[in-house]
Amino acid sequence: MPLMMDDTIAAIATPPGEGGISIVRISGPEAFAIADRIVRCPGSLPSQRAENTLVVGQVVEQARVIDEVVVLLFRAPHSYTAEDVIEIQGHGGNQCARRILRLVLDAGALLAEPGEFTRRAFLHGRIDLVQAEAVLDLIRAHSDRAGTAAVEQLEGALSDKFNLLYDALLMAAARLEATLDFPEDELPDLVMKEINAELQQINHDFDALIDTWDEGHLLRDGALVVISGKPNVGKSTLLNGLLEKDRAIVSDLPGTTRDSIEETFILNGIPVRIADTAGLRDTTDLIEKEGIERTHRMMRAADLVVYLFDLTDPDLEQALEGLKTVQTPHLVIFNKLDMHPGPGPDLAGSLCLSLLQETGIQQVRDALSLHLSGNIDLSARPHALISERHRRLLLDAKQEMEAGLELVRSGREDGLVLAASQMRLGLQLIGQATGRAYEEELLDNIFGRFCIGK
Amino acid sequence: MPLMMDDTIAAIATPPGEGGISIVRISGPEAFAIADRIVRCPGSLPSQRAENTLVVGQVVEQARVIDEVVVLLFRAPHSYTAEDVIEIQGHGGNQCARRILRLVLDAGALLAEPGEFTRRAFLHGRIDLVQAEAVLDLIRAHSDRAGTAAVEQLEGALSDKFNLLYDALLMAAARLEATLDFPEDELPDLVMKEINAELQQINHDFDALIDTWDEGHLLRDGALVVISGKPNVGKSTLLNGLLEKDRAIVSDLPGTTRDSIEETFILNGIPVRIADTAGLRDTTDLIEKEGIERTHRMMRAADLVVYLFDLTDPDLEQALEGLKTVQTPHLVIFNKLDMHPGPGPDLAGSLCLSLLQETGIQQVRDALSLHLSGNIDLSARPHALISERHRRLLLDAKQEMEAGLELVRSGREDGLVLAASQMRLGLQLIGQATGRAYEEELLDNIFGRFCIGK
Repeated sequence: MPLMMDDTIAAIATPPGEGGISIVRISGPEAFAIADRIVRCPGSLPSQRAENTLVVGQVVEQARVIDEVVVLLFRAPHSYTAEDVIEIQGHGGNQCARRILRLVLDAGALLAEPGEFTRRAFLHGRIDLVQAEAVLDLIRAHSDRAGTAAVEQLEGALSDKFNLLYDALLMAAARLEATLDFPEDELPDLVMKEINAELQQINHDFDALIDTWDEGHLLRDGALVVISGKPNVGKSTLLNGLLEKDRAIVSDLPGTTRDSIEETFILNGIPVRIADTAGLRDTTDLIEKEGIERTHRMMRAADLVVYLFDLTDPDLEQALEGLKTVQTPHLVIFNKLDMHPGPGPDLAGSLCLSLLQETGIQQVRDALSLHLSGNIDLSARPHALISERHRRLLLDAKQEMEAGLELVRSGREDGLVLAASQMRLGLQLIGQATGRAYEEELLDNIFGRFCIGK
Repeated sequence: MPLMMDDTIAAIATPPGEGGISIVRISGPEAFAIADRIVRCPGSLPSQRAENTLVVGQVVEQARVIDEVVVLLFRAPHSYTAEDVIEIQGHGGNQCARRILRLVLDAGALLAEPGEFTRRAFLHGRIDLVQAEAVLDLIRAHSDRAGTAAVEQLEGALSDKFNLLYDALLMAAARLEATLDFPEDELPDLVMKEINAELQQINHDFDALIDTWDEGHLLRDGALVVISGKPNVGKSTLLNGLLEKDRAIVSDLPGTTRDSIEETFILNGIPVRIADTAGLRDTTDLIEKEGIERTHRMMRAADLVVYLFDLTDPDLEQALEGLKTVQTPHLVIFNKLDMHPGPGPDLAGSLCLSLLQETGIQQVRDALSLHLSGNIDLSARPHALISERHRRLLLDAKQEMEAGLELVRSGREDGLVLAASQMRLGLQLIGQATGRAYEEELLDNIFGRFCIGK
């Protein structure tokens, strides 16, 4: 359950852990009064100061200093939530922020739910739902490209597209409805032709927008690449080669732990999780079965399986035989070209190289990039991309619209009436994307994925 | 090597990970010029605004928006570093802050070393070394008590004590040196008596300050408690009982991972790391030896070993026999009183209880607290506490002063001259605590333990 809008909410807005600065954020009608109560500063009270100013002071509890702080004052509607907002910047670490938050809650604020600050920004109309979702994408972005796409979305680029689509469909629906007032035989042919053309164009716009999902999916969720190959075939060399350039970027991605059998790196802006099946198999007898089961699960889930072969392996031909039945998308790499006299096997789409050479690694990067991004032009300027939620709404809305288009063309007597109502259903679905229409459950669903303090 | 003071430095000042807000901090002569270059905002440039104001704008790179930001403007000397400081608050997550930092570095700032912002605050004389160390203690504090002690230190309470000690010793040394101008037989007895009394008082002040180390050590480093006992004796019940109340507080302490054989909780403001030796022994045969070795190492390092016995164990008496040779500080607990008809064994200082009862757990908490805090009055108001570095300096300084006192009393002909030089040596040592005198190496040592961005 969301808190009531006239409650004042508060939460720690910085990640937990050691850092230079921590922030407690307060939003709502009591924000300034609470700051007055717990912050001691020279001169006038925080609530008496101008908006968009900083107050240097101390947070005090029963005359004891809890922390030296900087207080940021934002007045409604010029704030993140469009409400009065106070941010209290203290020294980093968990203890200071937690004690300050406790004081703020004691002074009457309620602990914010995850995403509640952004939810309020939406409920006050400062941003729409697509922009609110962009905030989460931005926080979670793992690459420049994903970040840029999220910012474009936050700036309204994607909302604009949804709104244009909405307006165009609304116009077509209204036109259609207007024709209902005419006896059918008096309706000029030209009008129906125009409506038809409009709907064609809208259909095309639908497709263009839906097509952005592939890239959005890759940028948000990343791709899973599984490496398969015998011991000593060069898996570690491949992994290290791929990871080398980006290890620094990758090291603080969530889930990238030393214990993990996966490593993550960024390939042309795409987060790639790369797993070594050998890591799964090198287990003791007891859990070998479970290891093999996990390997199979992982290979089924993979966006791409890399089969790595040793050109000098005498059993190579036999191993290649097994490949013929493989259905999952895969890339075949023949390694150790430097130790192999003749040309490699003649297998379309495979790479024949030496992973010990920088050029070899680069060939693999290029091939991976091509396989993973498919038709997506990663050299183009990044733009706002739809999410899975948007995609479902768009596909459903498109279906309604196409059904309408079909009815218009059918020449059925009640065709136009039914078509108009289909258009209206489609409109409702598009409206759900930006939040023109929404239910609490949808908001809970979206904002529940946020962290507390955002 | 620290960067030069006229360099402009920058770093991400919030912890890595998901959060509502991230901050890039810039300090130095170019801070405002850099903000002007990368921040787009309505109205005048950031550098044209008044200090202590907020600018709402966007960070842009080649006309592309990187993030929507709030920029905080602090002018020298009214800032954390006492230099011009810009803080750029962006959306949380790693990507935004990293991109902003990259732009800031491209615009001419240098990446700050760990602790370099605080180091500059020290070098500019805004805070002394004891206060700078308090910043780290504050960030690392795991309990309210530790936090309060660190804030007191940050506010100068501990610096004052060092300065008072310094001034008193300086006064005594100056007095002593003044007597050197007199022929010894003309020196009034009263003067020597006064100097003697002064030095006695200083000695006492030394002791009082050194005595705070125990509590500071406990608050900063915590106590290691090792639980020893047979399987099924109630170790898990004890652990869960102790952890229950504080699990929420503890969950984000660094090092408290699921894999760890240690759990951490706060007992009367003291962070207690509690380890179960069974966890070490429950290993496969192969590494059993290493497990036992680790157990022994851990028990030697323990501040307290808890021996847990089952009152209904038929071999109880034999097990108690083994206890007689134990040298390390320990607490003996007899569990399962609820299932035992008669009174427990007669062993001084031991507890006889049922861990299944809330009162039983409370008895253990009280006993642990007593054992760990010893003579420290944890109900008293927390105050600033010396660190290991301070303790070493104080012990060395005290030694010099005591040697001086000895010389004064010895009546040796050159006694007063030597005593005065001992006092001067003591003064130097105390001065090193607050940083009246320092070497680069000392600063590297202290600030190297900070996180980047502080």
